[in-house]
Amino acid sequence: MKQSWLKPGERIDDLQCKGFQLIQDPKSFCFGMDAVLISHFAKIRRNEKVMDLCTGNGVIPILLAGKNQSGQFAAMEIQQDAYDRALRSVRMNRLEERIEVIREDVRNSRQVFDASSFDVVVSNPPYLPAEGLKNPRIDKAISRHEVMLTLADLMEQTAYLLKPGGRFYMVHRPDRLVDIMTLSRQNRLEAKWMQMVHPRSDKKPNLVLLQFVKNGRPELKLKEPLFVYDEEGNYTPELLKCYQS
Amino acid sequence: MKQSWLKPGERIDDLQCKGFQLIQDPKSFCFGMDAVLISHFAKIRRNEKVMDLCTGNGVIPILLAGKNQSGQFAAMEIQQDAYDRALRSVRMNRLEERIEVIREDVRNSRQVFDASSFDVVVSNPPYLPAEGLKNPRIDKAISRHEVMLTLADLMEQTAYLLKPGGRFYMVHRPDRLVDIMTLSRQNRLEAKWMQMVHPRSDKKPNLVLLQFVKNGRPELKLKEPLFVYDEEGNYTPELLKCYQS
Repeated sequence: MKQSWLKPGERIDDLQCKGFQLIQDPKSFCFGMDAVLISHFAKIRRNEKVMDLCTGNGVIPILLAGKNQSGQFAAMEIQQDAYDRALRSVRMNRLEERIEVIREDVRNSRQVFDASSFDVVVSNPPYLPAEGLKNPRIDKAISRHEVMLTLADLMEQTAYLLKPGGRFYMVHRPDRLVDIMTLSRQNRLEAKWMQMVHPRSDKKPNLVLLQFVKNGRPELKLKEPLFVYDEEGNYTPELLKCYQS
Repeated sequence: MKQSWLKPGERIDDLQCKGFQLIQDPKSFCFGMDAVLISHFAKIRRNEKVMDLCTGNGVIPILLAGKNQSGQFAAMEIQQDAYDRALRSVRMNRLEERIEVIREDVRNSRQVFDASSFDVVVSNPPYLPAEGLKNPRIDKAISRHEVMLTLADLMEQTAYLLKPGGRFYMVHRPDRLVDIMTLSRQNRLEAKWMQMVHPRSDKKPNLVLLQFVKNGRPELKLKEPLFVYDEEGNYTPELLKCYQS
């Protein structure tokens, strides 16, 4: 019956969270562990207004709606096909009352929202610089490379959308940390919490989870590292916790 | 016999490196594991000129001289007593030919050295901001707090002293990472390598080792984390490696 939600080539994936499911196109960009990790890392308080920038198929607001009893979610995506899948997934999960999906270029946030409209911004943005672009498919390229949105753009728009004292949760690659720290402070988004994610305890980190506070004072706190696999190659208890709703 | 090198209250500590020893005053600032870690992390190539800023008792240049067969070392310290101990330790270890100890305010580097005089700068600087100063002893306060030298000063002077392409190795606290990343890039010292040091694998990092390159292009690489103790409370093999010469 749910198949009626699908367009050709698409499939429905179980999010293992309150029975929610997600429409994805295996040929386009599909969500990964990073989306799950940032949805666990982001702490949403009662009745907060939350924006997910670069929402793609909408996995983050759906997971956040599942993990948090209250909260109103908005989600912005520039690409028509991903936007359309996010919209259908929201409807399929009967989350229209809690999640609004907006097709818009994040760089145009000023045209759509007043300043300081959100308590929380979340993002799993493109990780890679536009240079060295290697994806022949433009939709995957836009999701992975800073073709349509640079990290500088993201920080600027987030600072515009957030209330003073509002929180920004982002997952990114540790090799972009200098850019991240420099651009966030330039935009008065002060990094407050950082957690490194390592494939295993003896491997270098390949993801970093960050919480920034708009107009916050300098005071970075580190969390214990998160290891994905243990020595036997099984998921660690800490990683499995991120998948629990 | 070596006791003749000592002033009242001082002691001689074994550096476990080529038989080298260090004069310390237990009532003043004594070197810790961080000095050992940065001396292992810093890679010195043949015949390079190396400057250690805020050398204190001189532990870092003495360890570097022990770990590296070649290389000429300079070491700058503002405090008279620490400078004097560093000087005596260098002589006691018969390292006068390789290590020059300079009593000077790091902020006066321009008065003492030409620009681009060094291939490598190393530093284990004061970690804590001047605010919230808690050490009643001024000598310990100067070693631990940014009373005489801020991180901004250190970055500026390092950039002056280093050749283009020269390397800066620094150990610091991870909670200063935003300041570190912002100030280093402002001074055209680009962070190239980063390693987090954790007391144990399940604890958050409490030290960070960094390598910057003057005028380097953005390209941060992460190393595997370094854990000090294993689950049984013993030093890990990786940590013990840092103590080997």
